[in-house]
Amino acid sequence: MEGSASDHHWMRRALLLARRQAGRTWPNPTVGCCIVRDGHLLGEAVHAGPGHPHAEAAVLLALAAHRIDPAGATAYITLEPCHHQGRTAPCSRALAEAGISRVVYAAPDDTPRHPGGGGAWLRENSVEVQPGVFGNLARELNHPFFETSSDSEPHLTLKLAMSADGALARRAGRIEAVAERAITGQRTRRRVHRMRAGANAVIVGAATARADHPRLDVRELVDGSWSGVQPQPVVLAGRHPLETGEVPGRALIMAGADGPRLPGSLRVLRATTRPGGRLDWESVLALLLAEGCGILLVEGGASVAADLLAERPPHRIHLYLAACGFGPGSVKLPGGLRLDDRYETLRARRLGSDVEWVLRRRDLG
Amino acid sequence: MEGSASDHHWMRRALLLARRQAGRTWPNPTVGCCIVRDGHLLGEAVHAGPGHPHAEAAVLLALAAHRIDPAGATAYITLEPCHHQGRTAPCSRALAEAGISRVVYAAPDDTPRHPGGGGAWLRENSVEVQPGVFGNLARELNHPFFETSSDSEPHLTLKLAMSADGALARRAGRIEAVAERAITGQRTRRRVHRMRAGANAVIVGAATARADHPRLDVRELVDGSWSGVQPQPVVLAGRHPLETGEVPGRALIMAGADGPRLPGSLRVLRATTRPGGRLDWESVLALLLAEGCGILLVEGGASVAADLLAERPPHRIHLYLAACGFGPGSVKLPGGLRLDDRYETLRARRLGSDVEWVLRRRDLG
Repeated sequence: MEGSASDHHWMRRALLLARRQAGRTWPNPTVGCCIVRDGHLLGEAVHAGPGHPHAEAAVLLALAAHRIDPAGATAYITLEPCHHQGRTAPCSRALAEAGISRVVYAAPDDTPRHPGGGGAWLRENSVEVQPGVFGNLARELNHPFFETSSDSEPHLTLKLAMSADGALARRAGRIEAVAERAITGQRTRRRVHRMRAGANAVIVGAATARADHPRLDVRELVDGSWSGVQPQPVVLAGRHPLETGEVPGRALIMAGADGPRLPGSLRVLRATTRPGGRLDWESVLALLLAEGCGILLVEGGASVAADLLAERPPHRIHLYLAACGFGPGSVKLPGGLRLDDRYETLRARRLGSDVEWVLRRRDLG
Repeated sequence: MEGSASDHHWMRRALLLARRQAGRTWPNPTVGCCIVRDGHLLGEAVHAGPGHPHAEAAVLLALAAHRIDPAGATAYITLEPCHHQGRTAPCSRALAEAGISRVVYAAPDDTPRHPGGGGAWLRENSVEVQPGVFGNLARELNHPFFETSSDSEPHLTLKLAMSADGALARRAGRIEAVAERAITGQRTRRRVHRMRAGANAVIVGAATARADHPRLDVRELVDGSWSGVQPQPVVLAGRHPLETGEVPGRALIMAGADGPRLPGSLRVLRATTRPGGRLDWESVLALLLAEGCGILLVEGGASVAADLLAERPPHRIHLYLAACGFGPGSVKLPGGLRLDDRYETLRARRLGSDVEWVLRRRDLG
């Protein structure tokens, strides 16, 4: 483990700050920063999203406003300071100019998006640099940022709740395992709500909306109720009509250009369709990006999941497996769970009596 | 966590001793014991199985043989000392009479098999008693003992390797996922060999034997090769003939009384059959108990697993899930993975790119 006990203390604080904004800064990463001198916190900030200053810049601005000189202080940042002239000046330069004598960061900014090099530049300019303090934690916190190659590539996670024998529901017509209230337990439900809190949009198919009337919002978290921004509920309507009461109030409906007429009270975007009338995923994703939704959580049902796996393999798949078997006649993914050799296991753990199994596309490893 | 750092040190040593004999003392539990005074090990032993002294008695006997007086020493034992007159004298009394002044044990002996009470008796007889040091570890090490109610109840674990969508094989005729060499990876293979090392017999059906020619032995362990006793390979032959080359050399064949003629070179036991010619599990288990095999690992294939789940739900199920999907046309368990509500998740973890999911019958929790 890199860094001293004191480094760990302050980086943990910066990570907690960053965690608050997880999923709320797309296409930017979420970043927290604490500036500390002689064991005392001078100031701290979290990046608020596009158009706002980076976390380091935000703290330096606040310190300047309060006439606090951070000369000789240490900056704890969850991501390597940027070194490019973007919407804001490079943070590397700003930190050095403010007299910061030591920079501790968690994850390196080594994505194809930016040239990076903030850490090296600081070192060349006589600032002590300690990288990699809780680096894996910081990368995981910003995995949608690290697993996409540009701001125009949305990050996709497919979540499926299944029986131990790979069924989504006991019988057709009830996508009971997909709706988190059904087969899997309370710990899985809370985990899924946490995932929603980190997403810009939560997507289901019309059949799931009709069968389960899911609210697709964040309600129940381990550490209390959610007061942050709710993700956008999205329903993929395809060819079939949909009633107002069948979808969450705030839902955005995606329908084909030649799709069904939908009640005027629903907000509808028209996507292109593929032969057979199914929505084209690329078109859906472009429309969602235009709505500012880049971190996407797809919660089923069976045909939406099968289409996604076939057309646009998601970056991550979260399987929630319940300790039950549905046997013959149960609902499986059409065409099976098409993982091929594209996915590897990132982690697995028990959640109450369920199992959380997180898979990631191999090309992202 | 119960006990001091020194208690942990010595109990860890006693647990390592016990682990060596895991699966080799049935129907007795495996127990290790260290006797320690002033930070020095006076002696240690592990129970060698039925007919041999208990671990505590074995150490006391060895100390007496070497004329070492253990007065004032501490005994570290992985299981509460027995307090009943069995094949050997009660260990509780032997420890007190030897002048042991403190007894530290891991798991309480609270099974229906014995009256227990060794710890309480020692306390009443002025011996200091510290229970529960690594108690959960010790219980898990002896879980076949704790999960059965008498010496005549064999302990059954069903192991299945499956794709993420619950298939045992890509297509019929190749039970490829059941044979550990196929779908799941090296870490799972080693884990399965470790399970075999703790079993008295490893059981497969004739179809699996024919398709995969499994050796059903312990070869590959994380901590090196295996020099201990190999489990008994067992092949359930049922109605179908079987050639010598299709089964491991040391295999024991279970066949119906009116079953096929089998080569004279094979060792065959005749079990009763159920309507349709399938072997009756109760009969198979009785025959194996008579062979001294009480800890049983069933490794498939599909019809053996399905019969077992239907007729004699095993105590534990180990699912090894590979990060692949086989889709339609793949081989599933006939009748599905019949867990009903009888099982709960004990633990789950990543093993390389596989997932190990351990389920336990709810009535044993």
